[in-house]
Amino acid sequence: MESKSLGGKSFILRLEFNTETLTFGHVAAAISEAGGDIIAIDVIQTGRGSSIRDLTVTVKDSVQIDLITEKLKALEGLRLVNISDRTFLLHLGGKIEMKPKTPIHNRDDLSRVYTPDVARVCMAIHEEPKKAFTLTIKRNTVAVVSDGSAVLGLGNIGSRAAMPVMEGKAMLFKQFADVDAFPICLDTQDTEQIIQTVKAIAPAFGGINLEDISAPRCFEIEERLKQELDIPVFHDDQHGTAVVLYAGLISALKIVGKSIQDVKVVVCGIGAAGMACSKILLSAGVRNLVGVDRDGALVSTRTYDNPSWQWFAENSNPNKEEGSLAVVIAGADVFIGVSRAGLLKREDVQRMAKDPIVFAMANPVPEVLPEEVEDIVAVMATGRSDYPNQINNVLCFPGMFRGALDCRATVINEEMKLAAAEAIASVISDDERSKFYIIPSVFNSDIVKTIRDRVVEAAIRSKVARRIPREYRQ
Amino acid sequence: MESKSLGGKSFILRLEFNTETLTFGHVAAAISEAGGDIIAIDVIQTGRGSSIRDLTVTVKDSVQIDLITEKLKALEGLRLVNISDRTFLLHLGGKIEMKPKTPIHNRDDLSRVYTPDVARVCMAIHEEPKKAFTLTIKRNTVAVVSDGSAVLGLGNIGSRAAMPVMEGKAMLFKQFADVDAFPICLDTQDTEQIIQTVKAIAPAFGGINLEDISAPRCFEIEERLKQELDIPVFHDDQHGTAVVLYAGLISALKIVGKSIQDVKVVVCGIGAAGMACSKILLSAGVRNLVGVDRDGALVSTRTYDNPSWQWFAENSNPNKEEGSLAVVIAGADVFIGVSRAGLLKREDVQRMAKDPIVFAMANPVPEVLPEEVEDIVAVMATGRSDYPNQINNVLCFPGMFRGALDCRATVINEEMKLAAAEAIASVISDDERSKFYIIPSVFNSDIVKTIRDRVVEAAIRSKVARRIPREYRQ
Repeated sequence: MESKSLGGKSFILRLEFNTETLTFGHVAAAISEAGGDIIAIDVIQTGRGSSIRDLTVTVKDSVQIDLITEKLKALEGLRLVNISDRTFLLHLGGKIEMKPKTPIHNRDDLSRVYTPDVARVCMAIHEEPKKAFTLTIKRNTVAVVSDGSAVLGLGNIGSRAAMPVMEGKAMLFKQFADVDAFPICLDTQDTEQIIQTVKAIAPAFGGINLEDISAPRCFEIEERLKQELDIPVFHDDQHGTAVVLYAGLISALKIVGKSIQDVKVVVCGIGAAGMACSKILLSAGVRNLVGVDRDGALVSTRTYDNPSWQWFAENSNPNKEEGSLAVVIAGADVFIGVSRAGLLKREDVQRMAKDPIVFAMANPVPEVLPEEVEDIVAVMATGRSDYPNQINNVLCFPGMFRGALDCRATVINEEMKLAAAEAIASVISDDERSKFYIIPSVFNSDIVKTIRDRVVEAAIRSKVARRIPREYRQ
Repeated sequence: MESKSLGGKSFILRLEFNTETLTFGHVAAAISEAGGDIIAIDVIQTGRGSSIRDLTVTVKDSVQIDLITEKLKALEGLRLVNISDRTFLLHLGGKIEMKPKTPIHNRDDLSRVYTPDVARVCMAIHEEPKKAFTLTIKRNTVAVVSDGSAVLGLGNIGSRAAMPVMEGKAMLFKQFADVDAFPICLDTQDTEQIIQTVKAIAPAFGGINLEDISAPRCFEIEERLKQELDIPVFHDDQHGTAVVLYAGLISALKIVGKSIQDVKVVVCGIGAAGMACSKILLSAGVRNLVGVDRDGALVSTRTYDNPSWQWFAENSNPNKEEGSLAVVIAGADVFIGVSRAGLLKREDVQRMAKDPIVFAMANPVPEVLPEEVEDIVAVMATGRSDYPNQINNVLCFPGMFRGALDCRATVINEEMKLAAAEAIASVISDDERSKFYIIPSVFNSDIVKTIRDRVVEAAIRSKVARRIPREYRQ
């Protein structure tokens, strides 16, 4: 069923049209007008006065798919039976499957993997529970858990609709780091019930990747699970973003020749990702960090209802700066945006310190578009794949969990996050580094192994590793 | 690492022994005396006064493995470093893995299976939730859920120790019926919390297979989940056993030429499996069924604290028979045992009706051993693979769920269970059927397809199918 696209996005339309009132020429014209290119036609059925055909159509941009369907729906005598594009075809029946590692050929095999012999394996784990790490999938398996409350930029679309993202994440885990991941999409958005559910299903898993859970619930859920489980719990939207951001900043600071202890950093948008980005930068040595949200700079001279803002105000902004983003941006070396489209103006960037570094990571439209400021910034990064320097979580989580699983870490701690960021930055050599290349591609073949090694070392150093991988044994 | 066994069970011992106090001959003699046969020796390390060797040893019965280790532990100067048999080696790192169905080669692939394109798939499901069945793994995925409270014959060994069984079950699902199953082992044995957890994780799944949950909690858990979820919930220990038992009974009754409406059936052990076996037989038309538990026959002239016993008493035993198994067995045509070893005596069988049918399914030792009664029974079945006519759940669940998933059944109802049993029985032709062959092997290649077709038909007939598979469309 996969269409033979020659580039661009292709999709298949199944149309039924009244051949007495409409010619195929009408249909083809409508598709062309909306920017579609018909590259194949399959006649499915022709009868008295009507015809059903599958048209394979290519477009440059998926927006045109909507335009085409609108045009077609406006045609009298035409029914749009079905629309399948390559993305939808790839999703048919889901994107992942469960496979036995060994086949069961006969009764002898059956008796080993199942009753009666499996009983001896069960009893070995019963007598020594840590053997679950050697004799079950726990050693290599991560739950990708979401409640569907903050999926991509789509908002609260619920658990069923979140599944394609979580399946995609499971694919990436396997492809990039040989980690077995399984999507757990929860039919509840109650904090306590999420915590209890994840705790209840934890025995099969060696780690928990929380995903697309809205703030502030994500903070309590992660914090409680970290305390109550003995396996790593990692909210990727927060910490994955933070790790990759910090990796990018390490590179960017090398380019402008500034030290992390000396820069003034303004973080715009103190939600889940903004909190995590700020925390990792504080851990990494940033001394002058100012957070800005809708009421302006967070400052310790004020009090906040939101407990994470209160913490933030008490642990940042040493010069007690007040006012809006336009005020506190003055003299800043680094802007970190995890907020909304268009919040940073060209005038704001002009008032930053010399060689400004701008990480405008709002999705899908950044706080400022690169083309608006490219002549006045030293380094610019966004969350988008169509500009240079994409801050992409996919760079972090496969290697991070590979490392955490390999050393059976009890947690993913700050040391491991910093190590992962340094590992990502280290993949780019001094020769390669430039303002348009501060961060490696997710397809870079060194990235997972490099992160994994540094994460394992950090876990051993900070005493959260339950197993020392062979190459680190003395 | 897999050992080259020539038959029997082989395993690998890693031994370190003091070469000054012990010769290899001593070690070999100890192993031989305990019934082991050394088939390979690998010297791992030799140093001053000590030697480490891997011995591959074959035994006839796994009990001998324990004898050998005891013998070895008693030897002065010897340390048993490690013991790995083939079963354990097969379990290293778990028995199943998650695989992407398509590889991610480049950014274009990535954008389709993950952001940004996946958002369109998410929104399609958000707008029409039933699309989860076409665009996610829900179509083909079953959760194998256990709380580890009644694992095999091992009892309450907990959720971690239950994992190897549930992974084995997931292997069987895939191998026999191409169903993707994932083990969910719950770190709670609280009825309400189990119900809430399974409900919470249900979005990813098209069916729930409950496994090894002890009675009476299993009844309430299954009943509530059936009511509160819109996907099939099937407690295999109950209904899998019941379906395969009934399949065997269909064959057995043909052999003795009796009709199901006319036989007297005594069911011994009214726990989870006994209840389910009795219910399917009542649905199938048995009129005279007597249940026996520790206080004797369940009878409607008495009252019971256990609500399922109360229901049972009111819906069986039409002649209000009272007394122990030895009393009510008189004149019975069929004995169904799901109780304990040795409960049925040869004298009891002698007092049954002509051509007695005995299904002694207690595990691992049946209510009566075939060799004790083989001369006086017409047909005999057990739960064991080392006697003819094994009543094995593996015959039922793969085809049952294949059928339920293919027609997107909302439940697995009584009609579907009866249909599955008839399908299993139908695989054995009149020519093949004999007292030693009433039930097909789990490796019979027709079994899953035959069950699946009958289950789909029954689901359509009883109006619980949400999808009519193509071959049944008119």
